[in-house]
Amino acid sequence: MPTAIPDDSVGLVSPKVEHFADPLALACGRTLADYQLIYETYGTLNAERSNAVLICHALSGHHHAAGYHNPEDRKPGWWDSCIGPGKPIDTERFFVVSLNNLGGCNGSTGPCSLNPATGKPYGADFPVITVEDWVHSQARLADALGIDQWAAVVGGSLGGMQALQWTISYPERVRHCLAIASAPKLSAQNIAFNEVARQAILSDPEFHGGHFHEQGVIPKRGLMLARMVGHITYLSDDAMGAKFGRGLKSDKLNYDFNSVEFQVESYLRYQGEEFSGRFDANTYLLMTKALDYFDPAAAHDDDLAATLAVAKADFCVMSFTTDWRFSPERSRELVEALIAAGKNVSYLEIDAPQGHDAFLMPIPRYLQAFRGYMNRIAV
Amino acid sequence: MPTAIPDDSVGLVSPKVEHFADPLALACGRTLADYQLIYETYGTLNAERSNAVLICHALSGHHHAAGYHNPEDRKPGWWDSCIGPGKPIDTERFFVVSLNNLGGCNGSTGPCSLNPATGKPYGADFPVITVEDWVHSQARLADALGIDQWAAVVGGSLGGMQALQWTISYPERVRHCLAIASAPKLSAQNIAFNEVARQAILSDPEFHGGHFHEQGVIPKRGLMLARMVGHITYLSDDAMGAKFGRGLKSDKLNYDFNSVEFQVESYLRYQGEEFSGRFDANTYLLMTKALDYFDPAAAHDDDLAATLAVAKADFCVMSFTTDWRFSPERSRELVEALIAAGKNVSYLEIDAPQGHDAFLMPIPRYLQAFRGYMNRIAV
Repeated sequence: MPTAIPDDSVGLVSPKVEHFADPLALACGRTLADYQLIYETYGTLNAERSNAVLICHALSGHHHAAGYHNPEDRKPGWWDSCIGPGKPIDTERFFVVSLNNLGGCNGSTGPCSLNPATGKPYGADFPVITVEDWVHSQARLADALGIDQWAAVVGGSLGGMQALQWTISYPERVRHCLAIASAPKLSAQNIAFNEVARQAILSDPEFHGGHFHEQGVIPKRGLMLARMVGHITYLSDDAMGAKFGRGLKSDKLNYDFNSVEFQVESYLRYQGEEFSGRFDANTYLLMTKALDYFDPAAAHDDDLAATLAVAKADFCVMSFTTDWRFSPERSRELVEALIAAGKNVSYLEIDAPQGHDAFLMPIPRYLQAFRGYMNRIAV
Repeated sequence: MPTAIPDDSVGLVSPKVEHFADPLALACGRTLADYQLIYETYGTLNAERSNAVLICHALSGHHHAAGYHNPEDRKPGWWDSCIGPGKPIDTERFFVVSLNNLGGCNGSTGPCSLNPATGKPYGADFPVITVEDWVHSQARLADALGIDQWAAVVGGSLGGMQALQWTISYPERVRHCLAIASAPKLSAQNIAFNEVARQAILSDPEFHGGHFHEQGVIPKRGLMLARMVGHITYLSDDAMGAKFGRGLKSDKLNYDFNSVEFQVESYLRYQGEEFSGRFDANTYLLMTKALDYFDPAAAHDDDLAATLAVAKADFCVMSFTTDWRFSPERSRELVEALIAAGKNVSYLEIDAPQGHDAFLMPIPRYLQAFRGYMNRIAV
């Protein structure tokens, strides 16, 4: 519990749920007949409805991006450092919408939801969802909220991919796109790490082909391994070195195969354990697949500039020097394509030791640059 | 099968086995009463016994480093590009000894061997072995072969760590140490990747606490995952990109959670499958632990130069530009310490796109530098 909710917090917030009865056609060829999205809003929509900002979340994110659900909450929402009064996404100026994506496990329709056709949880029968599908579902949420055009669509990592896709799928509906620590598509190495995570889950005997709910179990070991390998890629080698080095867990070595010898092992096991208790295995598979499939330029002979030609937004691209999951090089590819397509683009490569996770952290240079861009957006 | 055994091959070779009845005291505090080492030799020991070179293997390596066991063998030994007539380790000049380390699963005593105390395979009861223990066991093999001093001890990766340890444990017995794509100790990130691999094995229900032999099963899924994650770290991002890119396995996407969509997924699954059928899970744990524990400077207040002061060898250190598992920076740490300790050291950073695996590959610049150093060794 914070001793008191800080002044620059959006304060106590409550999620809302929007039901959609119109079938949603998906990239995989299937159709979702009916679904709901859970979301939160921060700030006030102005009379012109011109100050709305959409937050798109990354792999394990959700709708609770800022503020507190209860005064007793130990931690605020996942992007609280960037959303609030006077913060980069200033809730005195902007009306912020943050949702849990379709296929998620935090309240939007996903693999844990009941399949109306069977009365049981979808599990592995939930369709594969792509970044494009998410953007379509988010556009329907915008319709429901009476938002014709976003002042900005903002996201980090997989969230940045959604922000980019918005400018392609709905060019008239986005004035600014902020893609942070993101990439125009995954590299072979990125896909390889995702595949290890998926195999960890798929090969867990308690996965039961994705229908573990019916067996009353969860593939805990698989999820734990998936999170552990993911977590390594979120931190830089230097950040891990600075945080743990070769520090020992106790004052002597145990010399056996099962003991935790080094602090970094203990940290990883804790991260894996904690995650496996709160995240759905099918959602994890779905999120990694959405990452893998994202490749908007594929439909334009791999010409990213041609792909982005349709966009009407201005762009802000940010990357972090020690991010090796989505390295600055990947952001520069995007910037080059945007320049080639004649778009307005600001690019900032932020010197930060934290690796990919930097986009979630209150790094002063980052927050200042982020605030600087957002403050110049006319509403 | 090669159409004919090439002229620059050591040709057909047969492993030999040496039994040791003297107990070996280990770093973990336990003692191995009795053990055997399997090894191969290439070339001829000269009358002065001054031309012997020891090859130390890496995580998944073994004694079969060069030549063929049968004319029908599809592939030669794992370092055939570097060992043979006219090759960097020239068998016209040197007598080369290559062994399978203690704790291995290719013929030396290890977790798959019968525990004389129980009559069953050691399994998880096999003691943890350190790099220092290996060097002691290798020194006994040298004694058995009548080799007082190695012209050179050579290794890549974990093998390089053994080469370094030789110069510390037995300074009088090594004239040259070649440490290739190695490091004076693992970083937190290195340990973290090892820990994921270990957890994959330990959490496999078919691991049975390391006593899977008795159950007639192997922890195939765990070993497969361990190899997959390892394999990603052996290749550079660029090498994976060049080899696979985002190439699809078939001509269209399947959009499901289980299908192989991208070639890189198929490659990783194949590597994992193949490995899980030929490598022992307990040996894998043991090898990763040996890597984690290696830190010779720890006994000297982390002063690597002071640690290496005792060495009498000359050193050749080589690294590869795109190796991110044991980056050039780690080799430079070693070089700096050797310079500070007043040792003769040659350092070469080889421009190569292959990542950590480069040390196993016939890269012309690498082979030429390697040959250049070895040819100047007086025998």
